[in-house]
Amino acid sequence: MKLIAKLFDVDSAEPRVVVHRDDCRELGVKEMDRVRLNGASSHVIVVSISDTIVKKGDILIPRTIMSKIGAVDKKPIEVVYSPNPDSVKGIRKKMDAAKLTRDEIHEIVFDILENRLSKIEISAWLTALYINGMDNEEIANFTQSMVNTGEKILFDRTPVFDFHSLGGVPGNKITPIVVSIVAAAGLMIPKTSSRAISSACGTSDFVEVFCKVELEAAKLKKISETVGGVFAWGGSMNIAPVDDMVIDIEYSLGINPRAQMLASILSKKLAMSATHLLVDIPMGAGTKVKTLEEAREYARDLMELGNKLGIRTECAITYGDQPVGNAIGPALEARECIRILEGNAHPASVVEKACDLAGMILEMGGVPDGATKAREILSSGQALAKFRQIAEAQGGKKDLTSEDIELGKYVNDVKAVRSGYVHSINNKDLVAIARAAGAPADKGAGILLLRKKGQRAEKGDILFQIYADNQAKADRARDIAIKLEPLDIEGMLIKKVPNPSALKSI
Amino acid sequence: MKLIAKLFDVDSAEPRVVVHRDDCRELGVKEMDRVRLNGASSHVIVVSISDTIVKKGDILIPRTIMSKIGAVDKKPIEVVYSPNPDSVKGIRKKMDAAKLTRDEIHEIVFDILENRLSKIEISAWLTALYINGMDNEEIANFTQSMVNTGEKILFDRTPVFDFHSLGGVPGNKITPIVVSIVAAAGLMIPKTSSRAISSACGTSDFVEVFCKVELEAAKLKKISETVGGVFAWGGSMNIAPVDDMVIDIEYSLGINPRAQMLASILSKKLAMSATHLLVDIPMGAGTKVKTLEEAREYARDLMELGNKLGIRTECAITYGDQPVGNAIGPALEARECIRILEGNAHPASVVEKACDLAGMILEMGGVPDGATKAREILSSGQALAKFRQIAEAQGGKKDLTSEDIELGKYVNDVKAVRSGYVHSINNKDLVAIARAAGAPADKGAGILLLRKKGQRAEKGDILFQIYADNQAKADRARDIAIKLEPLDIEGMLIKKVPNPSALKSI
Repeated sequence: MKLIAKLFDVDSAEPRVVVHRDDCRELGVKEMDRVRLNGASSHVIVVSISDTIVKKGDILIPRTIMSKIGAVDKKPIEVVYSPNPDSVKGIRKKMDAAKLTRDEIHEIVFDILENRLSKIEISAWLTALYINGMDNEEIANFTQSMVNTGEKILFDRTPVFDFHSLGGVPGNKITPIVVSIVAAAGLMIPKTSSRAISSACGTSDFVEVFCKVELEAAKLKKISETVGGVFAWGGSMNIAPVDDMVIDIEYSLGINPRAQMLASILSKKLAMSATHLLVDIPMGAGTKVKTLEEAREYARDLMELGNKLGIRTECAITYGDQPVGNAIGPALEARECIRILEGNAHPASVVEKACDLAGMILEMGGVPDGATKAREILSSGQALAKFRQIAEAQGGKKDLTSEDIELGKYVNDVKAVRSGYVHSINNKDLVAIARAAGAPADKGAGILLLRKKGQRAEKGDILFQIYADNQAKADRARDIAIKLEPLDIEGMLIKKVPNPSALKSI
Repeated sequence: MKLIAKLFDVDSAEPRVVVHRDDCRELGVKEMDRVRLNGASSHVIVVSISDTIVKKGDILIPRTIMSKIGAVDKKPIEVVYSPNPDSVKGIRKKMDAAKLTRDEIHEIVFDILENRLSKIEISAWLTALYINGMDNEEIANFTQSMVNTGEKILFDRTPVFDFHSLGGVPGNKITPIVVSIVAAAGLMIPKTSSRAISSACGTSDFVEVFCKVELEAAKLKKISETVGGVFAWGGSMNIAPVDDMVIDIEYSLGINPRAQMLASILSKKLAMSATHLLVDIPMGAGTKVKTLEEAREYARDLMELGNKLGIRTECAITYGDQPVGNAIGPALEARECIRILEGNAHPASVVEKACDLAGMILEMGGVPDGATKAREILSSGQALAKFRQIAEAQGGKKDLTSEDIELGKYVNDVKAVRSGYVHSINNKDLVAIARAAGAPADKGAGILLLRKKGQRAEKGDILFQIYADNQAKADRARDIAIKLEPLDIEGMLIKKVPNPSALKSI
């Protein structure tokens, strides 16, 4: 039927047209069914039904779709019922725990890209993926589809080294250090990172404290080829866009299906033309990977998938039971990161992790005894020089120092309520406190740890400091900190175990 | 923070507020997070983020929510971040295939009722339910929660008989016949039915051809107690509303999780205070239940659940490989149904099914040899008298006859393209054709079958007639019918099987 196109000026995560209930009855569409709009070009889109915001005979069309199909405001457009896309069958098949073919997977990925699947269907897809999973052949096809539906960056230099951390451990500010060391050794490492979704600070969140992270593809390519590396935000290019399109839904459901996670990592690396990849798998109570068993499984899968996709992949299982270093939050992490590049030997955990991982990449690139070489590059100041070169190329200040980083001006101390040893640190609680303080949106907000695991604190000692950009947030974060007690302090005697026979007599 | 409430005049299946991106950042909410609105009363609702349709400092609130919380247009209202409801944890637990407690199930049901869960979360819930299922203890708790979150109809008479058909077989117009027979025998049967979702005609769709189906609770109670029965639309009361709130999503995903289906049936019966329930389980290629094994499992579960919930439940597995009777579509089914009550012995399949099922209910009510008694009540005209009494009480014409029913005026014949026997009838194809003709919205639309399984047709004989309210739909349905060939006609020789040794030499 013909309906009059009207502009629907709404920003929605999910583009929809709105059609009057009577017209929907005529078209035979129900809420969440789809129609095809036949303009200069044709487009399939999900329908919302309304009695009030649209008149009978009209159809509200989002601006992006209007221009895509060449529709004109207030002019008629042909609207026909469109059956469910075939990809819905693939989703049903995964609900029934069946293995999907390459074509079925591609249809799903493509229909997500084209907004042909509703959020309800994508939610069911992710849930089915979470519960029923994929084998490595499916994941390799899934990865390839995600790459093919986006932009691919091609370099004139090869090999292309890359690095990824599975995340889940706060304070993991090693990326600029690793990139600077590797690039200083003469290898090219065009590293893209992400922003925080549920964490306190993603790599891009703290890098943009001292330079721009949104790089166009051409600029990223140029800096990488000439300077040797970048610390860019992956979202600034259109690489594997489908992954970004489902992240909101994953976040809302609190799931990150293994197949989605693996395909997400590898598709971004494949789109960056990586030939060699090191994956850091932090393991510990608060991270994505709880046990060595699980970490090994991820490592095996990543290496097998890497082989299938033509990326030589190695993995490092790292200690993730407490934050890496002492700083959590954009400015705090940026300062700690630059300080280490400037020659500070502390926090030792950051130095050690960065050098060991950079060393593995160097060895993949043919450098013998990589970890020693990495330490040399760091201690000699070559890494700092390379870091400054990259930061400047990305629009940062010339001769950047850690003194340039401004922290939040409102600081609350959190003190030990008893004497003893730090038995454990709850990563998730620290993230909640840092977020309450304003991280990652407020660049100055975060946490500076003065005690870490195994260290002794006397009652009244400062355990950590909360930084914030205003007093209200600093106080709110402190209140949460007092409630959560993220650092567990106990004496050496943890629990008295009474004699079982004495127990019986109670 | 305080935002200025503005009326959001949109009809949406899912109520949401719209907040400017900058305010969302301040509140710490992402797309699909929730806020609590603190007005005269407080309400938690999902947030949509916009740059354009809402100004910074304003919040768009749907009309229903405005009045619920006592907010006033253009006046400030307090808006605070609201963490995920606890029910999200229950959904996650079901994703991980764990058994849910009574409280966890109740939280999910209650949060769906209160619009605290987004459609994305409900989709994940239904998908997890579809894949991981529930045991009968969980389903009983689920049922009870669905009852408790809605209206319950209490009768002054007891026992209360009820009847339900799992559906999936077209033309199943037996409900008014069963109710009339049972009520004529002196038992009370306040039967509520549904409208078609994906089928060509639900019971309520054809009953409303001759009387009103939307009855208020008080009226339903009065008619049931005085006349002995009703044929009401379940949706006209607020019984088990949560079930209706998820149907759209189930439909969109093309799934009906077993636990949801069982809880849906039993919650509606429990809300109607049923003490005795007969469930008809049509079995056959096009129905929900494909095999005898599966049908028996449903029967076992329904009886066990009935016991747990205090409803004496019996089941009848019935033949569902082809439509029941010859008519499909509202007016056509209404006419066939009334004709049988008027004394027509045909179609025999309808008479037989209605009497056998009514007989089982009579026996549950202590009437010996129920099926024989049911046939007596039907053939003596007592069922017709009772039917007319009920229809009139529901606002229908006095002394209703089958002649009063008006069929669609546009009829297309579909003829046999070859001679042979009807080997099979595809229920789903018939539904697609009837819907294309306009059923169930167009009351006159549908299909009248002139041949059924096992019958012979010569080339050119009319196999079935398509009825419609206008020529275009009649033609569209005929085109689809010609394409689908829902009646499979073959000679007695179905397939020649060549000698295997001859095959090898090919």
